Amino acid sequence: MLRVGVLGACGYAGGELVRILLKHPEARLTHVADEMFKGRPIGDAFPSLKGFDMPLCEPLDPDAAADKADVVFLVQHNGWAMEVAPKLMTAGKKVIDFSADFRFRDPGVYNEWYKTQHASADLSRTCVYGLPELKAETIKPAALVGNPGCYPTGAILGLAPLVANRLIDTSTIVIDSKSGVSGAGRSKLELGFLYSEVDGSVRPYNIGTHRHTPEIEQELSELAGSPVVVSFTPHLVPMARGILTTAHASLAKPTDTAKLVNLYRDFYEKAHFVIVLDEGDYPATKSTLGSNYCHIGMKVDARTGRAVVVSAIDNLVKGAAGQAVQNMNLMCDLDERAGLDFPAIYP
Amino acid sequence: MLRVGVLGACGYAGGELVRILLKHPEARLTHVADEMFKGRPIGDAFPSLKGFDMPLCEPLDPDAAADKADVVFLVQHNGWAMEVAPKLMTAGKKVIDFSADFRFRDPGVYNEWYKTQHASADLSRTCVYGLPELKAETIKPAALVGNPGCYPTGAILGLAPLVANRLIDTSTIVIDSKSGVSGAGRSKLELGFLYSEVDGSVRPYNIGTHRHTPEIEQELSELAGSPVVVSFTPHLVPMARGILTTAHASLAKPTDTAKLVNLYRDFYEKAHFVIVLDEGDYPATKSTLGSNYCHIGMKVDARTGRAVVVSAIDNLVKGAAGQAVQNMNLMCDLDERAGLDFPAIYP
Amino acid sequence: MLRVGVLGACGYAGGELVRILLKHPEARLTHVADEMFKGRPIGDAFPSLKGFDMPLCEPLDPDAAADKADVVFLVQHNGWAMEVAPKLMTAGKKVIDFSADFRFRDPGVYNEWYKTQHASADLSRTCVYGLPELKAETIKPAALVGNPGCYPTGAILGLAPLVANRLIDTSTIVIDSKSGVSGAGRSKLELGFLYSEVDGSVRPYNIGTHRHTPEIEQELSELAGSPVVVSFTPHLVPMARGILTTAHASLAKPTDTAKLVNLYRDFYEKAHFVIVLDEGDYPATKSTLGSNYCHIGMKVDARTGRAVVVSAIDNLVKGAAGQAVQNMNLMCDLDERAGLDFPAIYP
Amino acid sequence: MLRVGVLGACGYAGGELVRILLKHPEARLTHVADEMFKGRPIGDAFPSLKGFDMPLCEPLDPDAAADKADVVFLVQHNGWAMEVAPKLMTAGKKVIDFSADFRFRDPGVYNEWYKTQHASADLSRTCVYGLPELKAETIKPAALVGNPGCYPTGAILGLAPLVANRLIDTSTIVIDSKSGVSGAGRSKLELGFLYSEVDGSVRPYNIGTHRHTPEIEQELSELAGSPVVVSFTPHLVPMARGILTTAHASLAKPTDTAKLVNLYRDFYEKAHFVIVLDEGDYPATKSTLGSNYCHIGMKVDARTGRAVVVSAIDNLVKGAAGQAVQNMNLMCDLDERAGLDFPAIYP
Repeated sequence: MLRVGVLGACGYAGGELVRILLKHPEARLTHVADEMFKGRPIGDAFPSLKGFDMPLCEPLDPDAAADKADVVFLVQHNGWAMEVAPKLMTAGKKVIDFSADFRFRDPGVYNEWYKTQHASADLSRTCVYGLPELKAETIKPAALVGNPGCYPTGAILGLAPLVANRLIDTSTIVIDSKSGVSGAGRSKLELGFLYSEVDGSVRPYNIGTHRHTPEIEQELSELAGSPVVVSFTPHLVPMARGILTTAHASLAKPTDTAKLVNLYRDFYEKAHFVIVLDEGDYPATKSTLGSNYCHIGMKVDARTGRAVVVSAIDNLVKGAAGQAVQNMNLMCDLDERAGLDFPAIYP
Repeated sequence: MLRVGVLGACGYAGGELVRILLKHPEARLTHVADEMFKGRPIGDAFPSLKGFDMPLCEPLDPDAAADKADVVFLVQHNGWAMEVAPKLMTAGKKVIDFSADFRFRDPGVYNEWYKTQHASADLSRTCVYGLPELKAETIKPAALVGNPGCYPTGAILGLAPLVANRLIDTSTIVIDSKSGVSGAGRSKLELGFLYSEVDGSVRPYNIGTHRHTPEIEQELSELAGSPVVVSFTPHLVPMARGILTTAHASLAKPTDTAKLVNLYRDFYEKAHFVIVLDEGDYPATKSTLGSNYCHIGMKVDARTGRAVVVSAIDNLVKGAAGQAVQNMNLMCDLDERAGLDFPAIYP
Repeated sequence: MLRVGVLGACGYAGGELVRILLKHPEARLTHVADEMFKGRPIGDAFPSLKGFDMPLCEPLDPDAAADKADVVFLVQHNGWAMEVAPKLMTAGKKVIDFSADFRFRDPGVYNEWYKTQHASADLSRTCVYGLPELKAETIKPAALVGNPGCYPTGAILGLAPLVANRLIDTSTIVIDSKSGVSGAGRSKLELGFLYSEVDGSVRPYNIGTHRHTPEIEQELSELAGSPVVVSFTPHLVPMARGILTTAHASLAKPTDTAKLVNLYRDFYEKAHFVIVLDEGDYPATKSTLGSNYCHIGMKVDARTGRAVVVSAIDNLVKGAAGQAVQNMNLMCDLDERAGLDFPAIYP
Repeated sequence: MLRVGVLGACGYAGGELVRILLKHPEARLTHVADEMFKGRPIGDAFPSLKGFDMPLCEPLDPDAAADKADVVFLVQHNGWAMEVAPKLMTAGKKVIDFSADFRFRDPGVYNEWYKTQHASADLSRTCVYGLPELKAETIKPAALVGNPGCYPTGAILGLAPLVANRLIDTSTIVIDSKSGVSGAGRSKLELGFLYSEVDGSVRPYNIGTHRHTPEIEQELSELAGSPVVVSFTPHLVPMARGILTTAHASLAKPTDTAKLVNLYRDFYEKAHFVIVLDEGDYPATKSTLGSNYCHIGMKVDARTGRAVVVSAIDNLVKGAAGQAVQNMNLMCDLDERAGLDFPAIYP
């Protein structure tokens, strides 16, 4: 049984991680830490966890985590993991980081988009981007994995087969994403996330400047073998969870929807958590809520010469905690699906 | 491994039952039937189930179910189980019925509230009301269990300790319930359940005439040892799942909130799925969504001499499919918690 | 044309007041003040007001308001109006206060429930409770009106005919209210009001201790001619606006629903903004959203000997800003309906 | 006072039209018709209209409408107006049609996208597309106006200044729209529009095949002076009202956001209902709910060489009934703003 620690258990991603790990057949939560709830049961943070047998929240302390756990999840703000991860690795721990600190193989990209000098640039250069559907073989032996952002997960999974197969003109990629509000986190007490402000409202934000953009570009560039620049426009929609990503691109050669569906099914043949929908069927975020699955649907629009690919994920599961556990499974030589192959809740 | 059949898999309660059974450690779905989706994969009914390995939906046929399953869940309209259950029992099957057919030990009550002559009045007279927190010992040996209604589950769990301990004047019970819309089912394509009509709206319905009233009265009367009549007012609120039940009653003798909390904790000491909240803490439906837990909070209002008890459940889990599986576990000598002790999804 | 000032324009009630006054045929907004947005256009606070021609927000200053307006609305926290209202009245202004400061004719009640010594106890003793359907004749000549709380508006309108006609045993009144989240205001940046926390959740709060309780009791006691004590339980439901109030009470003499409907229609014959629904029809908050109307439906439950009366209002309109304008209309000898007789937005 | 008739008053667009006309200072509803509610008060269809003084619903009968009204709004399914409008025009009536029947100046486009032979092809050829911000001068003298679709209203208003000023490469236009569910209408009792199915879900539909596409292309082509083909992808989001349209296009010449904002402000200088937001500010559907305003925000993304323009409208007001009244105002020589210049409801 793996001993697992969570540093930052009381935000939405951390709470989701706890929810998943509680039922993981091969892992046991031995260390749960959160500054805001230290010394208290996690049920104080999440009433949904009242009645579950778990250790009390402890203060954030990498040494304590190293003592009690074999695998440590870091669920903190950007800039924290780059200080803490090296210590945990030195102690022989496997580390999965939810922040952006270890997503960029070029630390200059981090510096530019996150306006901070990276404190572990060398470690960053060798970091492993934890998107198992594309990177399983590099994730397996890794001691440190940068867990992808929620938007990039949906966008990259949606576009990878097109880019890898050179089916689109990569200079024409337009990505339009719609996210539930939990993506903003639980500690951001801003007016814009109040129920009364979000209800009945769709709005874009950070157009062209969202920090998830360079992640998408890094991975698509690797697949393309040449630099890919994308337009990325995120939107907030009135729901708690879920991301729908609609990607548009001009076809580099003619094809049709049926062929594209087959191509995606081949590409994701071994990807347990990717469901490629039949022609004419499109994903809905509701179909993935609470689950680690990613649904993908697509359409070739012969009239405009464009492909439209749509992916749906739960931002807190496949877009965060579920994917992190999937990474843990791979890093620890477990079945990739362990603790994760439960269906979405519907409705 | 129990072989399990579901007759009526494609409504909301049926789909939830499938979701739970798919991950049940001791049960295997060997027969899934639904008239509307017969011959098709259940993923056609619930896109959330695409990618899961399951038998195709078959037509509704008790004989086929008897062939393939040891336990059969009946998830059909009222009046259907009373025809079908006897056959399945004769074939030696254990039967759990979601309809109202086997909830009333006095078939006259059924006749009156459901405006139908009961076709299996004798069977009805000996039926077992499947609320495990109160009836575990009668459920265990039963071959047929009537799974409680969603509202009664929340109302009875909330009031039972008060009634059993004669702490309230049972002639003063006022029950005000607030339910998510999935309670109306998936096949009711009525104007009143359209998103645009429900969003932003709370409304009562069936005041004083809701068919769940006599269930509540039957069970509270048994606990009281004398007939109890209650006012029951259900409301529809703009959410998909969840029932919050607020019960008001005049105290028969003075007490305070702290004592009441203790009394509830004693009463539910062995009830794994009932969480009695601390004084000052009240339940929220969100804390139970997707889970089999019932949260209960309470307040003694010395100013008015009343107790107010509030319970929260997920109407599709503890109020339907989860409770049914809990009944199956008891009837089949499994751990009552098997396949059910996962936390709610939050947020 | 009345010159009108709003002190506190950028909370939800203040913004709603501005929305209504902008289209009022006999009033002109000449002074708009808000500390948080001083020096800025109100469109910065409410993007819905961009493009409307209005004065800039000024600092909160009663003297400035007295200079520029004939009628002044005070939309501030409790305790502020009791300092400011006397000055404005001395300057000959008509004042309508949204806080609790001038709702209680017995300042001792204020002291007890609001845990503060009232600073203008004498003024409080003569204050006018601004519920026009019951108090029009005292409102008309008043210089100062205490605008009712949102919950009391719905509860009192729902119960008044029963109490005034001695049809119920007033010791049995149980009031169960369900409110949208905007009632918590716009400045309360608390976790519990985040979209992700409210969505999908119904929960009670302040059971038996909500400060709106004594308002309800004051007015019902006056109607009854003797002290009335009520149980009041408020709930938060996942919607931005609206309050549904369900009131239960034992009948003092037998009656039926049809008779009750007639009695309510007689009682509210001249009340333009109260709509008494037909027998069998119940209110929904959606039917009143954005409007000053109150819908009331009812049921006599012969089985339990109780009456159940349900009222729906928009908490920000009939429960706050609309009612305030209705009071202004009466105080300024305008048609009570001026600027208010627009229908709800549906859906 | 204009006498106005509404043929089809009890769908969402019809009900909204009634809501607006009830308070129009220069118009009086003299004829209201709806097959489903004939002989009944409109409050039976929309409880929000209970208590308003209006004629009863009559059967759908153009002759009766012609008798009683000077202006007739046709709010029926496609194919109906093409039969009825000619008669009303012969009777000297002004006609505003909500269907697609008179939106296409080339009836071949209608035939192709709507799979029906147009019955009044000649009338179609001379029809006036009722988008007042672009077409006021042709609308004013028109006897028949085709009221635009909801999506095209948002998309065309968002893109017109870019296209008219030749600032973008029109072959690169990608339009991604997010709509509330009321756009599906009130009579469509389909599973996909039930509350439980829509709540928590974003999903695309009709990718590349939505019938509003040719409207957008027709109007942008006219502005461009050459054929424009666009990618249009509509999505359903969990809210009752509102459309947010995000349009992406490659710039034909370099510019920046500030210049673009100025260009839009010049373009819409006289357009009362278009609000061009400041640089850095983006629209939210909530800011326009219940109002006739269209908010537009934009961003030049120098990194990708694309402009992103976002517009927000209320699909039932600026996207349907409000725009229809705006057309009526122009056709009848009234102030374009009459009865329409009320702000959105917020929150």
